[in-house]
Amino acid sequence: MNIVSQSLSSSAAPISRAHCLAMDAADTLASRRDLFALPQDVIYLDGNSLGAMPKAVPSRMTQAIEQEWAVGLIRSWNDADWYPAPQRVGGRIASLIGAKPNEVIVADSTSVNLFKLLVSALRMRAGRNVILGENGNFPTDAYVASGVAELTGAQHRAVAPADVMAALTEDVAVLTLTHVNYKSGQAYDMAAVTRRAHEVGALVIWDLAHTAGAMPCDLNGCEADFAVGCGYKYLNGGPGAPSFVFVAERHHESVRQPITGWHGHAKPFEFTQTYVPAPGIDRMLVGTAPQMGLFALEAALTAFDGVDMQALRAKSLALTELFIRLVDQELSEHGFGLATPREAGLRGSQVSLTHAEGYAIVQALIARGVIGDFRAPDILRFGFAALYLSHADVWDAIATLKDVMVSGIWRSAEFMARKAVT
Amino acid sequence: MNIVSQSLSSSAAPISRAHCLAMDAADTLASRRDLFALPQDVIYLDGNSLGAMPKAVPSRMTQAIEQEWAVGLIRSWNDADWYPAPQRVGGRIASLIGAKPNEVIVADSTSVNLFKLLVSALRMRAGRNVILGENGNFPTDAYVASGVAELTGAQHRAVAPADVMAALTEDVAVLTLTHVNYKSGQAYDMAAVTRRAHEVGALVIWDLAHTAGAMPCDLNGCEADFAVGCGYKYLNGGPGAPSFVFVAERHHESVRQPITGWHGHAKPFEFTQTYVPAPGIDRMLVGTAPQMGLFALEAALTAFDGVDMQALRAKSLALTELFIRLVDQELSEHGFGLATPREAGLRGSQVSLTHAEGYAIVQALIARGVIGDFRAPDILRFGFAALYLSHADVWDAIATLKDVMVSGIWRSAEFMARKAVT
Repeated sequence: MNIVSQSLSSSAAPISRAHCLAMDAADTLASRRDLFALPQDVIYLDGNSLGAMPKAVPSRMTQAIEQEWAVGLIRSWNDADWYPAPQRVGGRIASLIGAKPNEVIVADSTSVNLFKLLVSALRMRAGRNVILGENGNFPTDAYVASGVAELTGAQHRAVAPADVMAALTEDVAVLTLTHVNYKSGQAYDMAAVTRRAHEVGALVIWDLAHTAGAMPCDLNGCEADFAVGCGYKYLNGGPGAPSFVFVAERHHESVRQPITGWHGHAKPFEFTQTYVPAPGIDRMLVGTAPQMGLFALEAALTAFDGVDMQALRAKSLALTELFIRLVDQELSEHGFGLATPREAGLRGSQVSLTHAEGYAIVQALIARGVIGDFRAPDILRFGFAALYLSHADVWDAIATLKDVMVSGIWRSAEFMARKAVT
Repeated sequence: MNIVSQSLSSSAAPISRAHCLAMDAADTLASRRDLFALPQDVIYLDGNSLGAMPKAVPSRMTQAIEQEWAVGLIRSWNDADWYPAPQRVGGRIASLIGAKPNEVIVADSTSVNLFKLLVSALRMRAGRNVILGENGNFPTDAYVASGVAELTGAQHRAVAPADVMAALTEDVAVLTLTHVNYKSGQAYDMAAVTRRAHEVGALVIWDLAHTAGAMPCDLNGCEADFAVGCGYKYLNGGPGAPSFVFVAERHHESVRQPITGWHGHAKPFEFTQTYVPAPGIDRMLVGTAPQMGLFALEAALTAFDGVDMQALRAKSLALTELFIRLVDQELSEHGFGLATPREAGLRGSQVSLTHAEGYAIVQALIARGVIGDFRAPDILRFGFAALYLSHADVWDAIATLKDVMVSGIWRSAEFMARKAVT
């Protein structure tokens, strides 16, 4: 038990802002906040949608644009090491998710990478016909799976989360799950699910959109097959940052993805007419790497340099536990439900509340500088990026939410009518 | 005939640098060069690989990163109009390629977009089984076509460029060609090829990688079906800029692309589990748009504001004609061949020379500040971006090439051994 949890659990009296400040004083990750440019008047609880901007980004972008591009021009593909960026940035991400550096590469979007992996997995399990998923997955995962099913003649079978283990039958070619649910913040037991899938001969694709950078993840320890993930959430790579894809080394020779572009070729600059897949993870590449996104993502990842992911997990759990306790303590009269498990081991790094008027409440909160987001029909999502949030932020966010509820300000037409944010 | 061509054709005496300066003085596009940040010591003839940096880019990136991302955070998807960027930037590109604004959208890479269109076209021509291409196409086009063929059970038939028209038979579902060949710089007659394809009931996908921003293009006038193109060549969007995709309005309802991600959904923010394609061009989207690339590309495209594409074509042809004439005049003893058509109407905006020692010669040229590139086995490529090149640049490039050849400097080990640039 770390000092933060101790501080909470030993407290019989109601939690106060002073408790939160004490926890901040003991927080070994507190200084990381200085690595991020956050507006003074904002408490940012939406890093699970778009991560905050690491201060390392602007100077890197300036160098990349005004020197490497403007002056180096085409020469920078070699001279500024643009070519190996997908592998190099992949290697950085690998260290955050329990993978070897040569098992992760940055390319395309999460949806496109999922498409590649689903087709690849079906090819590796010829004779099996089922893509198994869950019916509460992030929509793009379901859409891409159904698109692959239509394209290949496979069947996309989506079951309730609780039924996934039982649905792992011998006709399943591939199971595709998001590790931490985007809505509830609930996490699957990656090791147990992967083990069960392998027992029936199925492959597993883990979507780490809400995992990478938010909590430790041990892909190799779980003997995971494949994973994809998002560069712009907890990895803080900026809007639309490129995605990453993981292929376990044991599958490198057998994986054949269907979008056979030149950067996935064994020798792209020989300009032959016949496709020969690159050895290793490089074959997951398709077109020219999105360097603008890579520049920002690579700089952003330096915020993780030297971070102990177990310490980050401890702080993340302390923040989410604090938030849940304060909801209980401060907001019990206001009709909120808790959509996220109270059991720490089942949570990712977000807490979702339910409220019938959640949409307007979130808008009113945002107007007061506490930024979360809303997911239909009734979910208020709050993400806790442990690198840049403090325990006092949690207190202040709850205080603002309480003020919004007590004042009833969220009932104004202004907040009922706004467009949703992503 | 414009003043530049007149100046050349009326000149019985050898062309001199003074002739080139006179052409520059009469060049109505000359002032556009000031919109680009080009190093003083470089003549950049590789804008067909990576366009030069428009000066509008750095300030736009700073605003997008330090204000919209850092301060606006997630709110900028709405407040800074990030959401409609793929459509908005697509509309800008549409005006350069003879398309309606609602027919072009920016997404993913050229290879990924080609994949989407090939599968879509095969679906629209059920009962036909052939993807027709040419055997000198840019490799990624051939690789993607063969990948789609393998995935769908279609046949990828690649013929010599001269045989394309004859190979348009009734079993062809879709013809996929690059309008201007990456190696030779030769252009197809888009109208004639499209017409012939339609006569046999085939669809056509045009790859405009070496067309968009380099010369006018009349997709609608040619009744084109589909096109893809590259953001980082003549559109100057920066390394790995996102690609664009064109779908003729008449196909908007019938096109069904296979990578069914959430941003291609009719209502992505309702987070339903069933995919319903968006109406219109939006269904070509997949994942979250690569905003970093879009910021740069959108700013870059302002360099085309108010440009008459016929005037740009006239200047481009003057530059390439000047280059060819100067090769004849200055380099006849040095063993160069011409891989690009002398007939202006058959050229794009590049000139390719052949030379058995082309690789080392290009490296020696680059070392002296004249940047072209090399394509195996023997092609020296020189791209002429009419927005930022002058006729004097052409003279000076030839003078440098002559100096490299006369001095024999290219024979040094330094130039024989370098890595190739893209």
